[in-house]
Amino acid sequence: MKRPDGRKVDELRPIKITTGYTKYAEGSVLIEFGETKVLCNASVEESVPPFKRGSGEGWVTAEYNMLPRATKTRNNRDINRLKLNQRSTEIQRLIGRSLRAAVDFTLMGERSITVDCDVLQADGGTRTASITGGFVALALACKKLVDEGLMENMPIKDYVAAVSVGIFEGEGILDLCYAEDSHAQVDMNIVMTGSGKFVEVQGTGEEGTFTRDELYMLTALGEKGCADLVEIQKDALGGMEF
Amino acid sequence: MKRPDGRKVDELRPIKITTGYTKYAEGSVLIEFGETKVLCNASVEESVPPFKRGSGEGWVTAEYNMLPRATKTRNNRDINRLKLNQRSTEIQRLIGRSLRAAVDFTLMGERSITVDCDVLQADGGTRTASITGGFVALALACKKLVDEGLMENMPIKDYVAAVSVGIFEGEGILDLCYAEDSHAQVDMNIVMTGSGKFVEVQGTGEEGTFTRDELYMLTALGEKGCADLVEIQKDALGGMEF
Amino acid sequence: MKRPDGRKVDELRPIKITTGYTKYAEGSVLIEFGETKVLCNASVEESVPPFKRGSGEGWVTAEYNMLPRATKTRNNRDINRLKLNQRSTEIQRLIGRSLRAAVDFTLMGERSITVDCDVLQADGGTRTASITGGFVALALACKKLVDEGLMENMPIKDYVAAVSVGIFEGEGILDLCYAEDSHAQVDMNIVMTGSGKFVEVQGTGEEGTFTRDELYMLTALGEKGCADLVEIQKDALGGMEF
Amino acid sequence: MKRPDGRKVDELRPIKITTGYTKYAEGSVLIEFGETKVLCNASVEESVPPFKRGSGEGWVTAEYNMLPRATKTRNNRDINRLKLNQRSTEIQRLIGRSLRAAVDFTLMGERSITVDCDVLQADGGTRTASITGGFVALALACKKLVDEGLMENMPIKDYVAAVSVGIFEGEGILDLCYAEDSHAQVDMNIVMTGSGKFVEVQGTGEEGTFTRDELYMLTALGEKGCADLVEIQKDALGGMEF
Amino acid sequence: MKRPDGRKVDELRPIKITTGYTKYAEGSVLIEFGETKVLCNASVEESVPPFKRGSGEGWVTAEYNMLPRATKTRNNRDINRLKLNQRSTEIQRLIGRSLRAAVDFTLMGERSITVDCDVLQADGGTRTASITGGFVALALACKKLVDEGLMENMPIKDYVAAVSVGIFEGEGILDLCYAEDSHAQVDMNIVMTGSGKFVEVQGTGEEGTFTRDELYMLTALGEKGCADLVEIQKDALGGMEF
Amino acid sequence: MKRPDGRKVDELRPIKITTGYTKYAEGSVLIEFGETKVLCNASVEESVPPFKRGSGEGWVTAEYNMLPRATKTRNNRDINRLKLNQRSTEIQRLIGRSLRAAVDFTLMGERSITVDCDVLQADGGTRTASITGGFVALALACKKLVDEGLMENMPIKDYVAAVSVGIFEGEGILDLCYAEDSHAQVDMNIVMTGSGKFVEVQGTGEEGTFTRDELYMLTALGEKGCADLVEIQKDALGGMEF
Repeated sequence: MKRPDGRKVDELRPIKITTGYTKYAEGSVLIEFGETKVLCNASVEESVPPFKRGSGEGWVTAEYNMLPRATKTRNNRDINRLKLNQRSTEIQRLIGRSLRAAVDFTLMGERSITVDCDVLQADGGTRTASITGGFVALALACKKLVDEGLMENMPIKDYVAAVSVGIFEGEGILDLCYAEDSHAQVDMNIVMTGSGKFVEVQGTGEEGTFTRDELYMLTALGEKGCADLVEIQKDALGGMEF
Repeated sequence: MKRPDGRKVDELRPIKITTGYTKYAEGSVLIEFGETKVLCNASVEESVPPFKRGSGEGWVTAEYNMLPRATKTRNNRDINRLKLNQRSTEIQRLIGRSLRAAVDFTLMGERSITVDCDVLQADGGTRTASITGGFVALALACKKLVDEGLMENMPIKDYVAAVSVGIFEGEGILDLCYAEDSHAQVDMNIVMTGSGKFVEVQGTGEEGTFTRDELYMLTALGEKGCADLVEIQKDALGGMEF
Repeated sequence: MKRPDGRKVDELRPIKITTGYTKYAEGSVLIEFGETKVLCNASVEESVPPFKRGSGEGWVTAEYNMLPRATKTRNNRDINRLKLNQRSTEIQRLIGRSLRAAVDFTLMGERSITVDCDVLQADGGTRTASITGGFVALALACKKLVDEGLMENMPIKDYVAAVSVGIFEGEGILDLCYAEDSHAQVDMNIVMTGSGKFVEVQGTGEEGTFTRDELYMLTALGEKGCADLVEIQKDALGGMEF
Repeated sequence: MKRPDGRKVDELRPIKITTGYTKYAEGSVLIEFGETKVLCNASVEESVPPFKRGSGEGWVTAEYNMLPRATKTRNNRDINRLKLNQRSTEIQRLIGRSLRAAVDFTLMGERSITVDCDVLQADGGTRTASITGGFVALALACKKLVDEGLMENMPIKDYVAAVSVGIFEGEGILDLCYAEDSHAQVDMNIVMTGSGKFVEVQGTGEEGTFTRDELYMLTALGEKGCADLVEIQKDALGGMEF
Repeated sequence: MKRPDGRKVDELRPIKITTGYTKYAEGSVLIEFGETKVLCNASVEESVPPFKRGSGEGWVTAEYNMLPRATKTRNNRDINRLKLNQRSTEIQRLIGRSLRAAVDFTLMGERSITVDCDVLQADGGTRTASITGGFVALALACKKLVDEGLMENMPIKDYVAAVSVGIFEGEGILDLCYAEDSHAQVDMNIVMTGSGKFVEVQGTGEEGTFTRDELYMLTALGEKGCADLVEIQKDALGGMEF
Repeated sequence: MKRPDGRKVDELRPIKITTGYTKYAEGSVLIEFGETKVLCNASVEESVPPFKRGSGEGWVTAEYNMLPRATKTRNNRDINRLKLNQRSTEIQRLIGRSLRAAVDFTLMGERSITVDCDVLQADGGTRTASITGGFVALALACKKLVDEGLMENMPIKDYVAAVSVGIFEGEGILDLCYAEDSHAQVDMNIVMTGSGKFVEVQGTGEEGTFTRDELYMLTALGEKGCADLVEIQKDALGGMEF
C-alpha cells in the first residue's frame, strides 16, 4: 500500500501550530494537520454554568464549527437551517470531554473557558486537530490567567492530544487525510495524555466491523501518534511542563 | 466490591424483550435492561434520503428520545427549547451507525426503515438497550416485508447487540445501572455482531483517563455481554438466523 | 347501526388504568381506552410560573405528545420541524384547563405539577384518555405530597373525567374509536366532574353542522360516559374521596 | 346585574363591518365588536395543500395574530420567541374549522383561500369577531372569483357567525367585553350558520364548572346573538344569499 | 416625465396622521403616505435592556412588520418560517437608530419605549412612513409620561422625519410610490431633524450606480421633503416644540 | 487631532489581500484592513434562486458572520440563539447589493455565486473589508469559470470597493479602526466602482446628526479611499481590467 502523499503508515502529516493567531482570545492557535486547518480560540469568562455555581470550581467547554467552504462543496450554515449540525454536535462533545480530562477544576476558580474550534479548511482529522490545537489554546489561556495573577497555579494536569487511525486496504495507518478517511474500513479516534493514558477511544466499523486484533493494533498506532503530537505541542508551548 | 443489586461483575441485568408492544409499527419492541425501559419501533417508508435516490438501495436511520419523566427529575421537552438535546444527538447517531452495520442495503430496495427509540424509564444503559432492542425491531420489520413479498431476502447480515462496561471501584463491571454509571471512572459502550466482531467501541475516561490494560479488559467484558445479549435476541426472534 | 367492535352505543371501550407504570414520576399512570394507550406522568416541581410567584398558590399544567409511531403512519417529531404540532397545542391546553378545574391552588403551596401525556398508541380519544388518566396521575402525585407531609390536605376538589361522543350514521355514540371518529358527522368532547358538572364541552360539526337537539342528546350521552369513567378512576385510586 | 356599558344581557355590542378596508386582499374587512377591532383579509392562492392535490377541490384556512399592542400591556411578537403563541394556535384552528363549515370545496377548484385575522385592538371576543368578519372577507373573495369568471358558482353554503356567551355574576350574558370576560364563571363560544345550526360549541368552566341548565341557557343566548350577527353580515354583503 | 399620480417631482403624496388610532398604546398613530398605511404604536416599559441597567438612562427601540396581505401577493408570516424577514430586520434597525437620534436618554429615566410599526398596506415608502409616524407616536408617549408626572421634561430634542427620493427616468423625484420605486435607478432614504440636519442617508444604486451630482441633487430633494413632513408632524402634535 | 496609529486623516490602514487563502473555494481571499481580517470565499453553484429560474441569468449573494472571538469579548454563536444576528443581516444585505452592482447577470448563465465573509478578527470596517475582499474573491471565481470554459466572458462590469469614513473629534477621517469608530460622531460607508460612481452610501449620525457640508466632505473622502482600494484590488488580480 502506498499512501496518497507518500507517508509511512505510522507517520503524521506535517503538523504546524501557530500561537497568537488572533489577538483578542486569551489563547489563540491555528493548527494545521497537513491541509486541515482549524482555528482554536480559548475564551475566558468570569462565570460558570448553573451546575457549577457556588462550587468554587471552573468549567471548560468546546464548540466546533466548519466554515461553509471548508470543504469541497459549500455547506449551508447551521443558522440558515436553524439546527446545529448533528456531526458538529457529536464532535464538540468529544472535544469538550477530552479537554476537561486535562483540567483540575478546583484550581480554576469559578470561571469558564470556552474553546472555539472553527475549521477553515477540512482534509480529514478535523476533530483530532481541534483537540490537539484546542489543548494548546487552553494552556495558553490558563498561562495568561496565571501570569495576570487571576489563578495561582496552572490547572492543567497533563498534555492531551488526539489522532485518527484507520484500516485502509487492510493496513493500519495513522492520521488519515480525507482521501484515506473516506475509503477506510475502520476509523478510530484516539485521545491520550502526555503520560500515555487514554482519555477517549472511539472506533467505528463505518457500517462494517473489526476484530479484537485490529482494535489492539489501531490503539497501539494511536499511542505512537499521540506521543508525537505531544512533543509538537510542547514545542509550541515553549516546553511547558504540567 | 458488591454491586448494588448483588450481580456478579460480568452479569447482565435481567433482560426482557417484548415484541409486538405497539400495533402499528412494522417492528415493535419494548426492551428492558433491569429498570431501563425503551420502546423501539421500526417504521418502513417507501422512499430514501436524497443521497440514496436512484441507487436501488435502502437506508436505515434511528431517532432517540427520553420521555420527560424517564428520569429522577423531569426534563424539559426538546421542542420547548427548540433544540435537539446534544446527548440525544450523539446517541441517535451511534444507534444509526450500529444498526446500519447489520444491514445489506442492496437487498432492501429503495425504502427506509426508521427505528424510534423512546426511553420510557432510564436507569443507565439506554443507548445500549436502544441498539439491542432496535435491532430486534428492525429484524421484525424486515421479516414483515419479506413475508408480504415486498423484499425477496432478509437484508440482515448478522445480529448486532450492545452493552456498557465500566470500571467501578477499580473493578471492571458489565451493564452498569445508573447508580454505578454515575460513579464509574471509565465508561465504555461496546457494539458487536453475533459473530463476535466489533461494530463500535466508545470508551471515555469520564473526564479522567484509563490504561491500555483497562481498555483490553473492558473490551473482553463487553464481548461476553454482547454474546449473552445476542442469545436473548435470538430467543425473541424465534431463533432467526442470518 | 353496528359498531366495529360490537359495543352498545352508550358503552365505553374496555378501560384499564395501571398505576405506578413508571417509577420516578410522583404520579404515573398508563391508561388504555381500548387500543388507545397513553402514559400520564405527573411531576412535582418546587416552583411556580411567574404569574403565580408570591401568591402562595400552586399551578397545574399539561403537555401532550404522540410518539412518532403511535399512529398508522409515522409522524415526524416536532423537534425536527422545530414547531409544536398545532393539534397537540390545542389538546394540551384543553387537558391543562380540565385538570385545573379539579384543583384548589390555595392548598398546594407554591409548587407546580406538570402532567405529561405521551400517547404510545392512538386509536381515537387520546385527549379524553389523557384527561381521565392525567387526573389519576395528578391525584396520586398529590397523595404522595400529603403522605410525605409536604402538603397538609389534598388540593383535589372533585374527580374529573372526559369522554368523546359523536354522531355516526345518524346515531349518537359514546367513546369513539378511530374508525368511528374519522367518519363521524359531529364530534364532541365532554369533560365532567364526579358530581356531574361540566368542565368543558367542545363540539364541532367537523366542517359540517349539528342541531340543538343533537347537542342535547350528545351531552346527555357524555354525562353517562363520564360517570362510568369516574367509577373506574375511583377503583384505580382505591376509593379515594374528595 | 348591570353591564359595564349598560347593555341588556342579550344585547350585542355595536357591530361595525367595513368592507374593502385594504386594497390588495381579494376580500378585506375591518370588523368591530365594540372596542375590539380585527382586520380580516382573505387571500386567494392558485394551489392547495398536499392532501388536496389532484382532488379537484379547494381549501380554506385561517391565521390569527394579535398586534403587539392590541392589549393593555405589550405582547412580545411570536417571531422573537420563535414560537407561535399557543392561544393563537388554538384560535386559528377554531376559525379555520368554522369557516370551512360554510364552504363547498367541490365548487372552488384547486385553489386555497387564507383568511388572516390580525387583531388591531382587543377588548374581548376577538375569536368570535374573527370568525364573523372572516366569513364576510371569505364571501367577498369568492364573489370576486365568481365575478372574474374563475369560479362558476359561489362555493358558500350558508352564513357563519360566532359570538361569545358567559355567566357573569350568576346571569347569562351575550358578547362579553374584556372586563366581563375576565370575571366570567363560564365562557362559551358559539359558532352557527344562517339557518340556525351549530358549527362549533366550546364551553369552559374557566377552571370551574357549569350545569346542564347553564349549558342550555347559554347555547340559547348564543343562538340569538348569532342570528343578530348574520343580519349584520347580510347588510355588509349587500343582502347576498347562499 | 409624468408621475403616475400626476404629482410634481418634489411633491409628497397626501400625508395623513391619525393620532389615538388604538386605545391602549401610550402613543398610537396611523400614518398614511398616499396608499401606504402604517400603524405606529409606542409602548412604555419600566425597564431597560441589560447594557443600560443602572445607567439612569432610558432606551428607544423599534420593530417593523408587514401584515401578510399588506402587499399585492400574500407574504408568509415570519413565525411560519421561524425567521425574522431580513428586509424587516434592516428596516427596524434604521427606524430605531433614527428615533434614538431625537431622544435625550438622560431625561427618560430607566424606562424603554418600543415603537411597533405594523404595515397595514404597502405602496412604497413604508420605512420612511414608519419613521415619520413612529416619531409622532414616540412624542405622544413621552407627552403622556410628562403629563402623568413620570418624566419631568420631554426627552425629545428635535423633530425627526424621513422621506424617500429616487431617480426615475433620469429625473429626481420625491416620495416614491411602489410603481416608481420598483423602476427607480437610484433609491435613497433621507432621515432629517426639524432643524435640517441629517440623521441617516441611505442611498443605493439598486444594483446600479449613481454620480456625485446625483447624490447632491437627491439629498437636496430629501431636505425639502423632510421639511414638509415636519410641518405635518407639528400639526398632528398640536404645534409641540422641542 | 492625532489618529491612534499615526495615520493621516485620508490614509488607509495597511491593506493586504492574500488570494488562494483556502483551497476549495472557486475564489478565496483573506483581506486585512490593518488588524481587521476577513476570509472571503466565493462559491459557485449550478443553480439559481426561484425568482431567477428560467431567466438564463445568474445571481450573486453574500453571507456575513463574525467568528465568536473575532472581538474583544466572545460573542455567542447565532445557532445557539437560533437567530441570525440583526447586525449581520444588515451587513450581508449591503455586501450582496454592492457586489451585484458589479455584475452583468446575463453573462453568468443560470448559476449562483455565494460570497461568504467570515470575520476572523474585527478592528472596525469589517463590512467595507468584506465588500472589498469579496469583490476580489468574486472576480477570481468568475475568472476560474471563464478559464474552464463554463462562462464565455467575464460577467464583471467594473471594480467595486468600499471604505468607511467618519467624523472624529470634528475632523473627517478615512478607514476608521475600532477605537475611532466607537467614538465617531458620524459614520459613513461608501461603496464605489472603479470608474468613480457610487454604489451605496450609508451615513448615520450614530444617534446624532450631521450637516450637508459634512455629508459632502465625507463622500469626497470616501471617493479618495475607494480609488486607493481599487488600485490594491487590481494588484491582487494581476491588473485584470473589466
